[in-house]
Amino acid sequence: MALPLRLSTDRLFPADGHTREIARVLYREVCKLPIISPHGHTDPAWFASDAPFGNASELLLQPDHYLFRMLYSQGIALSDLGIGPGGGHTDPREAWRILASNYHLFRGTPSRMWLDWVFAEVFSIHVRLTEETSDLYYDTIAEALAWPEFKPRALFDRFNIEVLTTTESPLDTLEHHQVIRTENAKDGGWPGRVLTAYRPDPVIDPEFEGFQANLDRLSELTGEDCRTWQGYLAAHRQRRAFFASMGATSTDHGHPTAATADLPPAEAEALFADVATGRATPAQAELFRAQMLTEMAGMSLDDGLVMQIHPGSFRNHNAPLFEKFGRDKGADIPVATEYVRALRPLLSRYGNEAGLTIILFTLDETAYSRELAPLAGHYPALRLGPAWWFHDSPEGMRRFREQVTETAGFYNTVGFNDDTRAFLSIPARHDVARRIDCGFLARLVAEHRMDEDEAAEVAVDLAYNLPKKAYRL
Amino acid sequence: MALPLRLSTDRLFPADGHTREIARVLYREVCKLPIISPHGHTDPAWFASDAPFGNASELLLQPDHYLFRMLYSQGIALSDLGIGPGGGHTDPREAWRILASNYHLFRGTPSRMWLDWVFAEVFSIHVRLTEETSDLYYDTIAEALAWPEFKPRALFDRFNIEVLTTTESPLDTLEHHQVIRTENAKDGGWPGRVLTAYRPDPVIDPEFEGFQANLDRLSELTGEDCRTWQGYLAAHRQRRAFFASMGATSTDHGHPTAATADLPPAEAEALFADVATGRATPAQAELFRAQMLTEMAGMSLDDGLVMQIHPGSFRNHNAPLFEKFGRDKGADIPVATEYVRALRPLLSRYGNEAGLTIILFTLDETAYSRELAPLAGHYPALRLGPAWWFHDSPEGMRRFREQVTETAGFYNTVGFNDDTRAFLSIPARHDVARRIDCGFLARLVAEHRMDEDEAAEVAVDLAYNLPKKAYRL
Amino acid sequence: MALPLRLSTDRLFPADGHTREIARVLYREVCKLPIISPHGHTDPAWFASDAPFGNASELLLQPDHYLFRMLYSQGIALSDLGIGPGGGHTDPREAWRILASNYHLFRGTPSRMWLDWVFAEVFSIHVRLTEETSDLYYDTIAEALAWPEFKPRALFDRFNIEVLTTTESPLDTLEHHQVIRTENAKDGGWPGRVLTAYRPDPVIDPEFEGFQANLDRLSELTGEDCRTWQGYLAAHRQRRAFFASMGATSTDHGHPTAATADLPPAEAEALFADVATGRATPAQAELFRAQMLTEMAGMSLDDGLVMQIHPGSFRNHNAPLFEKFGRDKGADIPVATEYVRALRPLLSRYGNEAGLTIILFTLDETAYSRELAPLAGHYPALRLGPAWWFHDSPEGMRRFREQVTETAGFYNTVGFNDDTRAFLSIPARHDVARRIDCGFLARLVAEHRMDEDEAAEVAVDLAYNLPKKAYRL
Repeated sequence: MALPLRLSTDRLFPADGHTREIARVLYREVCKLPIISPHGHTDPAWFASDAPFGNASELLLQPDHYLFRMLYSQGIALSDLGIGPGGGHTDPREAWRILASNYHLFRGTPSRMWLDWVFAEVFSIHVRLTEETSDLYYDTIAEALAWPEFKPRALFDRFNIEVLTTTESPLDTLEHHQVIRTENAKDGGWPGRVLTAYRPDPVIDPEFEGFQANLDRLSELTGEDCRTWQGYLAAHRQRRAFFASMGATSTDHGHPTAATADLPPAEAEALFADVATGRATPAQAELFRAQMLTEMAGMSLDDGLVMQIHPGSFRNHNAPLFEKFGRDKGADIPVATEYVRALRPLLSRYGNEAGLTIILFTLDETAYSRELAPLAGHYPALRLGPAWWFHDSPEGMRRFREQVTETAGFYNTVGFNDDTRAFLSIPARHDVARRIDCGFLARLVAEHRMDEDEAAEVAVDLAYNLPKKAYRL
Repeated sequence: MALPLRLSTDRLFPADGHTREIARVLYREVCKLPIISPHGHTDPAWFASDAPFGNASELLLQPDHYLFRMLYSQGIALSDLGIGPGGGHTDPREAWRILASNYHLFRGTPSRMWLDWVFAEVFSIHVRLTEETSDLYYDTIAEALAWPEFKPRALFDRFNIEVLTTTESPLDTLEHHQVIRTENAKDGGWPGRVLTAYRPDPVIDPEFEGFQANLDRLSELTGEDCRTWQGYLAAHRQRRAFFASMGATSTDHGHPTAATADLPPAEAEALFADVATGRATPAQAELFRAQMLTEMAGMSLDDGLVMQIHPGSFRNHNAPLFEKFGRDKGADIPVATEYVRALRPLLSRYGNEAGLTIILFTLDETAYSRELAPLAGHYPALRLGPAWWFHDSPEGMRRFREQVTETAGFYNTVGFNDDTRAFLSIPARHDVARRIDCGFLARLVAEHRMDEDEAAEVAVDLAYNLPKKAYRL
Repeated sequence: MALPLRLSTDRLFPADGHTREIARVLYREVCKLPIISPHGHTDPAWFASDAPFGNASELLLQPDHYLFRMLYSQGIALSDLGIGPGGGHTDPREAWRILASNYHLFRGTPSRMWLDWVFAEVFSIHVRLTEETSDLYYDTIAEALAWPEFKPRALFDRFNIEVLTTTESPLDTLEHHQVIRTENAKDGGWPGRVLTAYRPDPVIDPEFEGFQANLDRLSELTGEDCRTWQGYLAAHRQRRAFFASMGATSTDHGHPTAATADLPPAEAEALFADVATGRATPAQAELFRAQMLTEMAGMSLDDGLVMQIHPGSFRNHNAPLFEKFGRDKGADIPVATEYVRALRPLLSRYGNEAGLTIILFTLDETAYSRELAPLAGHYPALRLGPAWWFHDSPEGMRRFREQVTETAGFYNTVGFNDDTRAFLSIPARHDVARRIDCGFLARLVAEHRMDEDEAAEVAVDLAYNLPKKAYRL
């Protein structure tokens, strides 16, 4: 007999009865608010084409490195999950069965909570995923995906998404975004607001695969000579303006460290000369990335794009796996990340600009109370992004609020980012964030550290107003 | 209509009803105990002159970098708050209004709790601070400050302070302390006990502003030749003796790192030769500070002064702000701080001395369970100071107890330090510490990890006995 | 009148009534399960000889550095506790009295909980240990230890230990284990399962005391020439096989850092040439230890021994104490420990081997969520050992689950290790772990993050199935 799958209306609220009651009241204020998703990695092609999604494995398992890394960690081959060069040869139903048979591995993880939400709320499945119910799941999902209600735009509407932001390289022509904007403009056209964000790592990081070719492509796209420092900077300005014209309100920078630099112009130009000719040493590459963060901050002050800095991931840690399967296979591992000395050059130059917004993220939770909250609680240009990636989880979010709030307050934070490729999980993720924030606020109220009317105002600000304001949406 | 301001008698106690009941019982044992404030930065001139305080802005806002850094972080100019070179030109009533209008920024911060306590308990204001009540606040406070009950000594008595310690440079002549001591000695004179502490950073840190002039001044004050190593050390001994004669029981050392050194005498002397002639490199400056911690420990063993080490703050991080506004403008940012290797030279020399007390502080909470509790749980000379500065907050204090107690116990800690310039908030700060400690102990009792009679004893020790003993008061 | 000593049946469960009720139900599933103790430091001679234990001080105080380090930290001389060169001259009854008189120092520590369990459950003492009850304790324990029910094998059986693992050097002849195995094999012989583990630090760490003599001894024992790289490796293989034949299923490596290396064979051989002739610099010693971890992993892949890595302790920090009293006197202090870059050479070589098990430990809790959970949540060869040493405590275990589970799940962890020399405390320690895990699971259930049937399954897996599986028992 199949076990029931039930989502409690009280899930994630503190266990204490009185605190839970307060959390419920606060949550009522926010549960119906539209979703602001200002940073993520969904594919704009979905909303441009509105083609139906494929099967359960293709939709839910294969693009989600949270899921397959856990299965891999327990000895399951990626190829058996339909991932990698031999992927095409695996029956998606059998790949799904492996997930189903090993679903116990996800106990206590956010993946489990997000998936259960998708199963129950999106697909109305009310039995637990196990080996026995694997086919039932696979068939139910396959059938549903064929219905118009499960096409990307319909789900976007059903999910009550007010704005969804994707991330693109400066080399991207944004054709899908163009299609969506045309559709938006049509009389009676689909009104869904899908924005892009400027993610220039491929043309900023000298160690990025294909960097030299990327510079060539950037020259072609812009008509600038990207082998000269001035041409290169002008090309960025031009692409930023193009992205902004296509709706972008932000840039995003995924660097190995938080290092910034503020070199005299001549030194920056000389450094670029080495970078642009492929002669840069690793130390020069690091210095160039550092310098470019400051350059980007300067451009943001001019064009108003909000700047996001995401440092601290050791990418592609598993060398043999990377050779066989490539990027984003669950082998990016956080490292200790220093912010105080690293950000000083940029902050000395632009940190006092109230017209600039720089949103900082971290994978190193030790920086929350020690470095990030004190920095954001002082510099007008700084705001703190939410608990991110590995820490985008109930305990992770709780630690974020507990360690950040007392020094930076709530108003130097920017609400929630889902940062996901897993489109169907977006409402679940925002719901987790809202519930955890309401639970945190409820504890403050229960401990008489905040009045309930103020907690309700903060709950709405965190869920809706702060992300809109911080990202200028 | 104005919103009420109410301080719950249960504030900060755990929400769980049973645990809260235990916390209430424990708190009853400590709530009336006198305040021991063994480390802080109030101005002894207040108690020497007993002149009335000024207006709300001058008393509560302008000296409190916790408050104006948060306002600054949200784009409010310091000059609008009456701070900095142009400060005098801002109407204090208007500065206060800015705080009032932005009071929501402090939700969830300890500043909010401390201020609300001051408003309700000191000034008997029972409506919430908002833009609408700003003038009411300003006027009420102005009126009260003119009454004798609000003069510094009267507040000191009303606050039930048994001892209050300030911090002075060796170059300070301690004239205010002298006035207070004379007053104390008078028949029917004010008996308030205000002590000094020896804070020699200005004459120990070669990178301190005016260091060379400070050496000259130290020579003048002591009659020693402070350009020779022996004369310099003798001058310290002399000033320490003077401070002790004026009531000091402790020294305080605010270094960028926890580095200590134990150089052979000839090397120390050679190092000082470079320091005293202004030729010291940054590495030499660091080594000199390190050596001086060990020298100071040796002197403490001789003269009995308790030694406090406060490392790990990157001072004046915001260079443009520092140039315009100077020190202590909310731009000191914590950095990762290593203790185990750093303290070894000092501890190898003096760590086994049970007659010596060294109190360690940290701004890097990761050191609590990893380094500080194991060190303090072994070396007879070491004790741990309380959660400090950014971590002097409900969550910060809770983390301190949770991460320190299991390895170092309660008896290698020294109770609470308020470390504040904000005189009016002292009772509020001690009250927060007592409530959090009672809440922590109540959880241990509720989880059957401690009997209630022992918890009551520990609560009193933490609030009163341990600071008196550790600081030899 | 003596105060009562009572162990609540609800100890360590969350205070919230509803959550506690769930914890009780979960605990009922695990409280009677046999103890799997796959890593520890009890003395196999106890079980080989089955000689009665001595007095309370000799049994409980003098071998337990958790206890005497705390007393030492408060100024009590080790010699007064009967420890060190003059140890023999202290009356054990007087040493015990010092512990009794200072028992308040242990309030809130796990030592207090373990001892109270031993007193109440093993010796049926039901008054609190104080100066007044010191003699009562001493006499009661002395009397009990003379009875057959308190001999080592009887206690082993009474404690319901299914398997107990000790740790020995490759130079150990394992004669006590041989005696135990012979006894096991006898008709009607004692069936207690006591295994060894291969701990090669004394012959791998060039900085270990007596390293060169240890290499000689290893040559003698194995007939290999341990001054040649091939001979040295062959000697390891031979001793590993011998240990495995005596029941070992694991190896254990206590290195200062987590550094690993994967040198080309010729470089490894050249490095060993320096190591084997005592010429290795500290950097070479570190590189050699690093290389040997990878060599050991390769051998584990061949012979199936599970590999444990315990890095991050600064050994013998207190130099004067070490000179007088030697190792293991409570002066080993944790340091910040990096894993991501450190383990990469080993993981690039062997991390994708599902047939290999490497169990990682840490004394640096900051690595839990940042480095260890992401690594273990990806690499098939990795598992995470439990909260260790200073962190083997209620709060420490709670932090471990809270910071590890959301990324690595439960199934990349290996249950509990007691890691202790204190034989009598073993059941208490496992009981604490079971109670904390049940409390953590109960919270997940109460917050609707896990169904109760799944929590019950996880509880049993953590207490029994996972350690058996991970250690191949």
